[in-house]
Amino acid sequence: MPAHATTAQPRGFLIPIGGAEDKIGDAAILKRFVRLCGKRPSIAIIPTASRRDDAGRVYQDLFSGFDAADTKILQFARREDCDDDSALNVLSQCDGVFITGGNQLRLSTTIGGTPVAKLLRRRNANGMPIAGTSAGAAIMPAHMIAHGEEGATPRAGMVSLAPGLGLSNKIMIDQHFRQRDRIGRLLTAIALNPFALALGIDEDTAAFIGPDNVLEVVGNSTVLVLDPAEVRHSSLAEANPGEAVSITNVRMHILTAGMRFDIDRRVVAE
Amino acid sequence: MPAHATTAQPRGFLIPIGGAEDKIGDAAILKRFVRLCGKRPSIAIIPTASRRDDAGRVYQDLFSGFDAADTKILQFARREDCDDDSALNVLSQCDGVFITGGNQLRLSTTIGGTPVAKLLRRRNANGMPIAGTSAGAAIMPAHMIAHGEEGATPRAGMVSLAPGLGLSNKIMIDQHFRQRDRIGRLLTAIALNPFALALGIDEDTAAFIGPDNVLEVVGNSTVLVLDPAEVRHSSLAEANPGEAVSITNVRMHILTAGMRFDIDRRVVAE
Repeated sequence: MPAHATTAQPRGFLIPIGGAEDKIGDAAILKRFVRLCGKRPSIAIIPTASRRDDAGRVYQDLFSGFDAADTKILQFARREDCDDDSALNVLSQCDGVFITGGNQLRLSTTIGGTPVAKLLRRRNANGMPIAGTSAGAAIMPAHMIAHGEEGATPRAGMVSLAPGLGLSNKIMIDQHFRQRDRIGRLLTAIALNPFALALGIDEDTAAFIGPDNVLEVVGNSTVLVLDPAEVRHSSLAEANPGEAVSITNVRMHILTAGMRFDIDRRVVAE
Repeated sequence: MPAHATTAQPRGFLIPIGGAEDKIGDAAILKRFVRLCGKRPSIAIIPTASRRDDAGRVYQDLFSGFDAADTKILQFARREDCDDDSALNVLSQCDGVFITGGNQLRLSTTIGGTPVAKLLRRRNANGMPIAGTSAGAAIMPAHMIAHGEEGATPRAGMVSLAPGLGLSNKIMIDQHFRQRDRIGRLLTAIALNPFALALGIDEDTAAFIGPDNVLEVVGNSTVLVLDPAEVRHSSLAEANPGEAVSITNVRMHILTAGMRFDIDRRVVAE
């Protein structure tokens, strides 16, 4: 699913952030993203998920303070905006992209299937880092968690998927994880088809996923990893809507800052 | 998303069937599938989606009558069955695979992420045809329509997606299409992220999708194609659950037997 690289360059970092990342303290996550983009990088900000007029400007001000040479806000409010040559030109030239929070369905319905989505896939495949917080994290994988219900127990129908950007088909991403009690919906999501790793990313926490598909946790809380490789049974196919769903042999990892996990090999990396 | 071919051989046919295909008349769809698999082919049948004990045997008897040299039923009732060496050996050797109807979530929860799913992807990438009816059609794409509500009007939340087998990420598939009044849910599915073509396949009708991604309609009714490439607006991201959803500029094609459609170029093929 990830677009194929057209050069020998390795894929760019993917940096899903669990939302509510620190902006006034040491801002470790955002600073590290800017550093990853290069020396005095040019960064494009996509605030499409948000209804707030200042969603892009908040990050523009921050990134400028972190030594970005240049920041551009690409509004993409309507699908026709995604054909705009000057915006596509910015996306072709920038050193990194940041996608704000809001509603991930606003992202998928507005940019899905447009030249913007194709260009984001191609630039990432060719080495450009893409970071996103909250909705901007959810949109990254092939299979996006669009919305769902809170609670620790997986229940039939408690999670709704939609096609995402397809930057990776090896992971699914949930965010505001512990703060919104989302383990039930993440378990339900992997029960649907136990093939992808599921990442539950807490607020003010990020997974920096490198070109080698090894992630490193940065931030103040944890990333939960659910690995369904050995799942033996789940009742999801037989459960009525709202009914509790069984699922066995899920392997779980809770990772704190500095810990690394190899997504391809599905093991904690030393 | 489709597995990468490991030889120069073109991808195998994908043959999603809309369910309730003719078995006692000229059985045009099933006969054509068997012919596509080669001369006196060996065919593996996967009845996992069905609860009926005889689901596999029905097709075994039919395919034998259509000059298949050999047919094997691979039960895959539980996830541990998907590690079985003799079954994997059959899948490695056969000339074609047929997936029966039933409940597509039983397929995704049982074979998703197992060696069976990986082998089906690899064999198809290397040239082997895979046909499936009803649930067996739904499971084929990257994004599977798991279930939904009837009705012609798209409404927020009326369709549930799950990850499918990932044999193609260019199409989504719905079946029993006209018979179960599913255009509303198919429109809702493309509104979520307007990037893939949506195929609504009627009963006793099939899309024979060739290695060149050109499909040909076979059977007694129609295949509806929804192309979201020019979609300008949809209200899905803002709609409340159950609320009617707007979507504009969907291009629609209704194709009858013998008609061909180029999935890559998104045009009716001559």
